[in-house]
Amino acid sequence: MLSVFVRSALTKYRRSWLPGQAAVRAMSSSGGAVSPYTTLSISHPAESITQVELNRPEKRNAMNRAFWSEMVECFNEIAGDPSCRVVVFSAAGKVFTAGIDLMDMAGDVLNPEGDDTARVAWNVKKIIAKYQETFTVIEKCPKPVVVAIHGACVGGGVDLITACDIRLCTQDAWFQVKEVDIGLAADVGTLQRLPKVIGSRSLVNELALTARKMFADEAKSSGLVSRVFADKDAMMAAALEMAEEIAGRSPVAVQGTKINLVYSRDHSVAEGLDYMATWNMSMLQTQDVMKSAQAAMEKKSPKTIAFSKL
Amino acid sequence: MLSVFVRSALTKYRRSWLPGQAAVRAMSSSGGAVSPYTTLSISHPAESITQVELNRPEKRNAMNRAFWSEMVECFNEIAGDPSCRVVVFSAAGKVFTAGIDLMDMAGDVLNPEGDDTARVAWNVKKIIAKYQETFTVIEKCPKPVVVAIHGACVGGGVDLITACDIRLCTQDAWFQVKEVDIGLAADVGTLQRLPKVIGSRSLVNELALTARKMFADEAKSSGLVSRVFADKDAMMAAALEMAEEIAGRSPVAVQGTKINLVYSRDHSVAEGLDYMATWNMSMLQTQDVMKSAQAAMEKKSPKTIAFSKL
Amino acid sequence: MLSVFVRSALTKYRRSWLPGQAAVRAMSSSGGAVSPYTTLSISHPAESITQVELNRPEKRNAMNRAFWSEMVECFNEIAGDPSCRVVVFSAAGKVFTAGIDLMDMAGDVLNPEGDDTARVAWNVKKIIAKYQETFTVIEKCPKPVVVAIHGACVGGGVDLITACDIRLCTQDAWFQVKEVDIGLAADVGTLQRLPKVIGSRSLVNELALTARKMFADEAKSSGLVSRVFADKDAMMAAALEMAEEIAGRSPVAVQGTKINLVYSRDHSVAEGLDYMATWNMSMLQTQDVMKSAQAAMEKKSPKTIAFSKL
Amino acid sequence: MLSVFVRSALTKYRRSWLPGQAAVRAMSSSGGAVSPYTTLSISHPAESITQVELNRPEKRNAMNRAFWSEMVECFNEIAGDPSCRVVVFSAAGKVFTAGIDLMDMAGDVLNPEGDDTARVAWNVKKIIAKYQETFTVIEKCPKPVVVAIHGACVGGGVDLITACDIRLCTQDAWFQVKEVDIGLAADVGTLQRLPKVIGSRSLVNELALTARKMFADEAKSSGLVSRVFADKDAMMAAALEMAEEIAGRSPVAVQGTKINLVYSRDHSVAEGLDYMATWNMSMLQTQDVMKSAQAAMEKKSPKTIAFSKL
Amino acid sequence: MLSVFVRSALTKYRRSWLPGQAAVRAMSSSGGAVSPYTTLSISHPAESITQVELNRPEKRNAMNRAFWSEMVECFNEIAGDPSCRVVVFSAAGKVFTAGIDLMDMAGDVLNPEGDDTARVAWNVKKIIAKYQETFTVIEKCPKPVVVAIHGACVGGGVDLITACDIRLCTQDAWFQVKEVDIGLAADVGTLQRLPKVIGSRSLVNELALTARKMFADEAKSSGLVSRVFADKDAMMAAALEMAEEIAGRSPVAVQGTKINLVYSRDHSVAEGLDYMATWNMSMLQTQDVMKSAQAAMEKKSPKTIAFSKL
Amino acid sequence: MLSVFVRSALTKYRRSWLPGQAAVRAMSSSGGAVSPYTTLSISHPAESITQVELNRPEKRNAMNRAFWSEMVECFNEIAGDPSCRVVVFSAAGKVFTAGIDLMDMAGDVLNPEGDDTARVAWNVKKIIAKYQETFTVIEKCPKPVVVAIHGACVGGGVDLITACDIRLCTQDAWFQVKEVDIGLAADVGTLQRLPKVIGSRSLVNELALTARKMFADEAKSSGLVSRVFADKDAMMAAALEMAEEIAGRSPVAVQGTKINLVYSRDHSVAEGLDYMATWNMSMLQTQDVMKSAQAAMEKKSPKTIAFSKL
Repeated sequence: MLSVFVRSALTKYRRSWLPGQAAVRAMSSSGGAVSPYTTLSISHPAESITQVELNRPEKRNAMNRAFWSEMVECFNEIAGDPSCRVVVFSAAGKVFTAGIDLMDMAGDVLNPEGDDTARVAWNVKKIIAKYQETFTVIEKCPKPVVVAIHGACVGGGVDLITACDIRLCTQDAWFQVKEVDIGLAADVGTLQRLPKVIGSRSLVNELALTARKMFADEAKSSGLVSRVFADKDAMMAAALEMAEEIAGRSPVAVQGTKINLVYSRDHSVAEGLDYMATWNMSMLQTQDVMKSAQAAMEKKSPKTIAFSKL
Repeated sequence: MLSVFVRSALTKYRRSWLPGQAAVRAMSSSGGAVSPYTTLSISHPAESITQVELNRPEKRNAMNRAFWSEMVECFNEIAGDPSCRVVVFSAAGKVFTAGIDLMDMAGDVLNPEGDDTARVAWNVKKIIAKYQETFTVIEKCPKPVVVAIHGACVGGGVDLITACDIRLCTQDAWFQVKEVDIGLAADVGTLQRLPKVIGSRSLVNELALTARKMFADEAKSSGLVSRVFADKDAMMAAALEMAEEIAGRSPVAVQGTKINLVYSRDHSVAEGLDYMATWNMSMLQTQDVMKSAQAAMEKKSPKTIAFSKL
Repeated sequence: MLSVFVRSALTKYRRSWLPGQAAVRAMSSSGGAVSPYTTLSISHPAESITQVELNRPEKRNAMNRAFWSEMVECFNEIAGDPSCRVVVFSAAGKVFTAGIDLMDMAGDVLNPEGDDTARVAWNVKKIIAKYQETFTVIEKCPKPVVVAIHGACVGGGVDLITACDIRLCTQDAWFQVKEVDIGLAADVGTLQRLPKVIGSRSLVNELALTARKMFADEAKSSGLVSRVFADKDAMMAAALEMAEEIAGRSPVAVQGTKINLVYSRDHSVAEGLDYMATWNMSMLQTQDVMKSAQAAMEKKSPKTIAFSKL
Repeated sequence: MLSVFVRSALTKYRRSWLPGQAAVRAMSSSGGAVSPYTTLSISHPAESITQVELNRPEKRNAMNRAFWSEMVECFNEIAGDPSCRVVVFSAAGKVFTAGIDLMDMAGDVLNPEGDDTARVAWNVKKIIAKYQETFTVIEKCPKPVVVAIHGACVGGGVDLITACDIRLCTQDAWFQVKEVDIGLAADVGTLQRLPKVIGSRSLVNELALTARKMFADEAKSSGLVSRVFADKDAMMAAALEMAEEIAGRSPVAVQGTKINLVYSRDHSVAEGLDYMATWNMSMLQTQDVMKSAQAAMEKKSPKTIAFSKL
Repeated sequence: MLSVFVRSALTKYRRSWLPGQAAVRAMSSSGGAVSPYTTLSISHPAESITQVELNRPEKRNAMNRAFWSEMVECFNEIAGDPSCRVVVFSAAGKVFTAGIDLMDMAGDVLNPEGDDTARVAWNVKKIIAKYQETFTVIEKCPKPVVVAIHGACVGGGVDLITACDIRLCTQDAWFQVKEVDIGLAADVGTLQRLPKVIGSRSLVNELALTARKMFADEAKSSGLVSRVFADKDAMMAAALEMAEEIAGRSPVAVQGTKINLVYSRDHSVAEGLDYMATWNMSMLQTQDVMKSAQAAMEKKSPKTIAFSKL
Repeated sequence: MLSVFVRSALTKYRRSWLPGQAAVRAMSSSGGAVSPYTTLSISHPAESITQVELNRPEKRNAMNRAFWSEMVECFNEIAGDPSCRVVVFSAAGKVFTAGIDLMDMAGDVLNPEGDDTARVAWNVKKIIAKYQETFTVIEKCPKPVVVAIHGACVGGGVDLITACDIRLCTQDAWFQVKEVDIGLAADVGTLQRLPKVIGSRSLVNELALTARKMFADEAKSSGLVSRVFADKDAMMAAALEMAEEIAGRSPVAVQGTKINLVYSRDHSVAEGLDYMATWNMSMLQTQDVMKSAQAAMEKKSPKTIAFSKL
């Protein structure tokens, strides 16, 4: 039964890349909800899959004031939505994102309030903490997030994608840790996550210190992305297919896997193992194990199983 | 009085390199010993090298109930055996391992005992902790472990190989983090060690969340294995040669290197450096440094030196 | 204006590889200072760039007794020098370095003083701690260090380069973690930093346990270096160009980036984010942000901006 | 240009201490404001002091469903209110609190929702995390919280007071870690904070494992409270006096002190010192230092100084 | 299907509280069992309570070779024994313990084997690790351990009691960190645990550096013990009464409390809270909460409840 | 023989408190060296004991510019001096110290240099780091430091004494964490060390947030000091006697104890145990164990043993 959903979802998806985004939204399984956001568009290309799209194409998806709040609201929503099992994150228009919208944000960034240096600093910390949260919500959301990147991914864009779980890109994608060019050390995630995401510290340092562009091939060989596609259509089809694979497995297994992968990044192996065992004290008592084991013995795909919502 | 002690110690020391060693060698090499285990076979392809082989080829080396205990026993034995300096780990039959033997283990995994949820959970934790220990013994064993993988390496197999030190594989090898397919988050090591073993977190997440297969080329390019070979024969020859290189060096140097590499994985650089210096307070006082330095000056290979056992 | 500096610097640089190193030094912007060191030569190929060169070519730049102290003195000097914004580290002669100069160091390493084992151990720890500091100063220095490696880079050489920020090498470069060959576990940084610098733990272990050589291609594919060049001239030109890029950006941004990249290596993402936000409480209040933002809006390169010294 | 900025900033700064402040004071002091909460009552016994009172005396201030949300709302409010510099926390009626209101909360605690054990567990974690946050907000609020305890302080009451900064109690106060009596390990803070708050682990363990009552004298000698008073009136007077001492000092100094005390509890001394230095990079640039130093030299109390709001 | 499982589980559960239990009690109480150990005597003064006694009174309970192994065996046994809920640890004869039995242990401690300094060091580490485990088993055992100390508690005795959960002593008890007197830094636990057990670091340092005796009053005021008794009889009666209090509560609650208290000692508050919540995902689903809550509402003591074994 | 030294030392000491400090210095065992410091006076009241005295009594031992450098120099000297085994730290004149000498330090603290806020911040961090080091050297020095406090101990004085190992005071001593009074959060150690030194966090917070004075009795009951004496003479005699006790034991044992006590403060118990075992790999191989064990068997005091220098 699930496979029917998948097929229809793919059909829906393909249509969604034809003229008229609005049509997709109308057809998405949870209905044609008008997105409550001005910078993000939300759709449901298949059951259990939520697609979030950066949606200010006329501004190259630059991150304006509204964006920082909407991301938090959106991912908190997704985290608490039991009918969503996986997220695909992508961008409308010609590029993924041009990064922070300096025009809109200049007040916050260039001229924070405060009666003296200490009081300005106090407000600066509040602002940075708020912006950091914008990307950390992606990591805190227990549903895996597959990000699909095309064209430019600059500044805040790198902060965003390094907080996602799986990264795909098109052949024309490029990445730029832009912050040193505007006189500041990147402070909303790149310096913390990029080195834990790719395997060459020399490259990380080079990117962050020189602000040079990195193109798709180097992104692939360095491990920033796990796959490169000829064009956006091919990438989106693959992203959806991957999302289907994930959505077709037990949400107890999948979300437990994400939570423990994030935990183990920040802990020793021994600590990670102990947490994992404590986690599975309850999680192994799910009916999903029994259902999945039975399907496995009957040589059926896990996608044929109806799992309860989580 | 001290000087007397020192003199007698030196005498003992000098004697330790005279004839007598040869006899040992004769006994141990390629030894044909009867293995005390039902799932592992143990041999000594060369002096100072222990080969451990997964040995239930008719069951695709699936990990049954006996396996989990035998591994611990076997590696504790090896850890305490002064005549072993390096371990080669491989598998008999057509594949490395099909992973956990669900038929044999179903009781433990699917139906743990306990009067209520909490008591079941208590027993679940005990079982997981025991299984985790099965692979952690590889890491705790101070002798380096070179693992040689051919054909399928599935589920528990990935947990096993990520706890080894050096990974080699054949061109036909493939790897699969299978656990989400049976409804659970992998809980005996993969989620903790795989991300610290390879350089692309995007790939780690993809493998763990989709359970897709990864083939030899991607295993090589991602750094999971350091070398790929045309077939098992070529791989085993290379594994043995590598083992001989390691076995030919000072065991004080080699085992200290393993212990400190494992330590540094889980600590900051500053902590790692301090531990290293504390470790070498005693370890640099070995005669092996003098012997090795002298050999180096005489342009002799370290393999020509007779080191005391450790 | 800056571009003039750059061009003239490159000219100067090229000349510096023609016969007569002395000439370069004479022309370097801070004047022809005679290097105060016997093992290092210092020059200023362009404004804001300090070049440090291993300079005992007749001894293959082996690290002798003087070297360990001079490095500390040199990098403390650089750390405190507001006119330096970036460091290029390279080596004179045919190879980068043959590693520790065993002849000169034998007393310290092979025969430390002390009335009994514990007292020898006490002195051993002091010596190791001192040698560790020799490379840790590179990391503590807030100015980025680009290291350019040609020919052999052996033993202590690997300790040195893994403490630098960006690694470049020539096609004929090779790397060797040599310590097990002389009977000891590498104790001045390689075992701690190499695994955090490249993305394949299997490879790290293989290198450290077998002491085999790794050549330029593997150094590139494993991420140890971020670029490989045909020969030393090409590499040095690129290193200088990269240094110019870095030196042309706000030192507040660049040095804050290095400090936070090092911090995040040794902390969880959450800890790193909090430190970053605390750091930028003051650092975002720099005039450099305003200047850089204005230049960006005017489509000018950051290299055109005159930043205050730091 | 900078100098202009500075001058105008200073002008703004000077103006901020002229008349106008008085009006605020008039409005806030001991304010009779209608509390927006059903379980807490809020008042302003003096300028810059907020008093929060547990206010369900007829239910012995038992913690009902509303309480857990109101605490978070209330302390977030306080954290963001620049006119509050210190908080006094106390309770109306005959006792401090009887702890969790089992009648009102039974659904959540005894019967959480979920289709199977794992899904129940998932919801249990959400609930616990929410309740933990209820007390953690006290710690995250940068304003110091002085808690004044009389009569019974049971179960959740101990979780609450150990998250406060300074603890005072009356002679008739008693404390009870009650959770084992209802079949569960205390999970909203006591087991984590109590051992870091008092100096006898033997006592902590005894209290938590036996659920015995501890009276005021032992609370004082063990360091749980720093002062004991004859009755509630004496205690409240002292609490207010202490709050006034704190409110009379620079908020930059006071709140920086709280933040760093909390940080240092959870970090090594070296980490704490580094964070402290990074924090003070901006915070020492406050005008409050100059004002305070001047007052000190003139032998005036810091309470005579008008500090800007933070 | 799930509901069938649940029903049958509930049936099993209900049966577990019916008659049958009494028989066990008859067998175990104050049991006269022959101890399998030469240095420890084991008895069961009440149902669910195991008493372990140091039992070489003629040797002042000095810790000989056998002791170090027997402790591990004994506490592993206890950890796995579902009918034991709490342990009382005490000593036969005139004193608690004189510490290590130097005569019996001299070989191990004064003259470890090994061909050179490094190999001796290797064996020294093995021995120390084994001795550390002797006391760490107390901490790893999830059942609370109440230790009752009379007379001398010297050297290894302090290592032992600081690994216990609750410490009681007689008026004539005294404590001595003796190790510096025999030329070594205490290496089996005192230096690690004592500072986390009492609240005055000045006192800890004084005791460890001067080896002076501390008497009962100072042990009480410093928090090392939580109660002092006139004589051994009074102490043992109180220890048993305390043990009964603990044994009378839900073992799920009690053992979860111990495990989380130990965890929180070694982690930040945030880490401890997260672990606690993860732990209670399953543990709150125990029937013990319901039973205990019902008893509480009926004003019955938890000791009247029949809890399932754990 | 040692006892003769002790007696003569005590005699010398008593004389040192009679009129004419200069005389003492002349008589101290290493001779009448003129102190190289302007703020500290150094003497040797007995063999192996170094006494450091704050010596600006006319300025109430306020910490001026010179002090911060001299402390580092002095303790580095002591750390490297094999004839010193223990340090007694005290103060000349009527009080221990009035804390920072604001008059002398105002430039650094109130008016640091820098072209903009970020550059001022950069310099502020350098200054704080330097001042922190002033007290951290006490902790890094492996010789135990006994501090004897009389009269006022204010501000920086509390930073200083919390970095010492053992704290004694006179009945008239008082302590004040003064920093909030001058508008800043204490940043050279108090907020990091005080909470790890005493057992009541409520008290720590009260002291740091209100700047109130704490007198000798509370200092004793809270564990800040381990002993209180009627007057300075009695305290100094006891400090010396305690120093004799420490100096009379094996320096390998004593200094290893200090190093591991400091280590264990900042690490989990498991980490501390592992470090301890690694440390003792070499340290147990000292002749001091044999000598001490032999003395113990012969019922001789360790003070009768002649230990080699360390």
